[in-house]
Amino acid sequence: MATYADDLSPGDRFDLGHYGLSEDEIVEYARRWDPVFIHTDPAAAQDTPLGGVVASGLHTLAIYQRLAVQALWSRFTGGIGHSFDIRFRRPVWPGTTLTGHLTVRSVTPRPEREDAAVTLDGELVDDRGEVVLQLINRSVLPLRPEAPAVQNG
Amino acid sequence: MATYADDLSPGDRFDLGHYGLSEDEIVEYARRWDPVFIHTDPAAAQDTPLGGVVASGLHTLAIYQRLAVQALWSRFTGGIGHSFDIRFRRPVWPGTTLTGHLTVRSVTPRPEREDAAVTLDGELVDDRGEVVLQLINRSVLPLRPEAPAVQNG
Repeated sequence: MATYADDLSPGDRFDLGHYGLSEDEIVEYARRWDPVFIHTDPAAAQDTPLGGVVASGLHTLAIYQRLAVQALWSRFTGGIGHSFDIRFRRPVWPGTTLTGHLTVRSVTPRPEREDAAVTLDGELVDDRGEVVLQLINRSVLPLRPEAPAVQNG
Repeated sequence: MATYADDLSPGDRFDLGHYGLSEDEIVEYARRWDPVFIHTDPAAAQDTPLGGVVASGLHTLAIYQRLAVQALWSRFTGGIGHSFDIRFRRPVWPGTTLTGHLTVRSVTPRPEREDAAVTLDGELVDDRGEVVLQLINRSVLPLRPEAPAVQNG
């Protein structure tokens, strides 16, 4: 059954599941989208305080979004993302399993437009439960269509 | 020659170049990272007010970052991204050529750490010059290493 903005309330929390991150995937994503050596060159990255490659922050954001779509947004019939405010809190090394969470902050129905402005907090934590990615996401999601009025006569 | 935070001043503007976006690439990126039908299913998207698939906002952010690395960040010896505040201003349809710009907002040297906190404004515009992606990026970039003092005797 489709989910609508009506079904979300401030404080609702969703577990988004897990995503295991390999060095190969870190390097592959970064070569295409964020080609700096700390993400793409294991040998050169070894000589830095990080001790090796770490994931591009944009890669961790993409992982968050994939988890959020699979766990929640795929149940909606539509919706438009307006903004992300993103903080990269800690490096993510190869071999990390990331776990996502999402908490609804506010839902502001706009019945005249048949939608609601929704603000939520998202995060990814690493194997030790430390937050690596923190974000605020604002989007517009459809309200449940009203049942058609019963016609008399 | 390597570039350092010393070389950036508020108001400096960099042209980041262009990126042409095909429907195949929009669908490919979204299938992996943002699998909702408005990005992945041209047939279903045709029946929406958008008239077809549009790029995932995260995909446009990845394109911005690729352009920014190629044009600017690859000249730096290091640096750590701390945050992005991102606004998705307009849909991006297949066939669009995106053009990136970056303007330095502030540079705050921290000589005791040999780095500087740098804030900048980034954007992607479409073929008509309309802003589709707007962002504020905060990062820490290395200052130019001081020349070693001349030893007398």
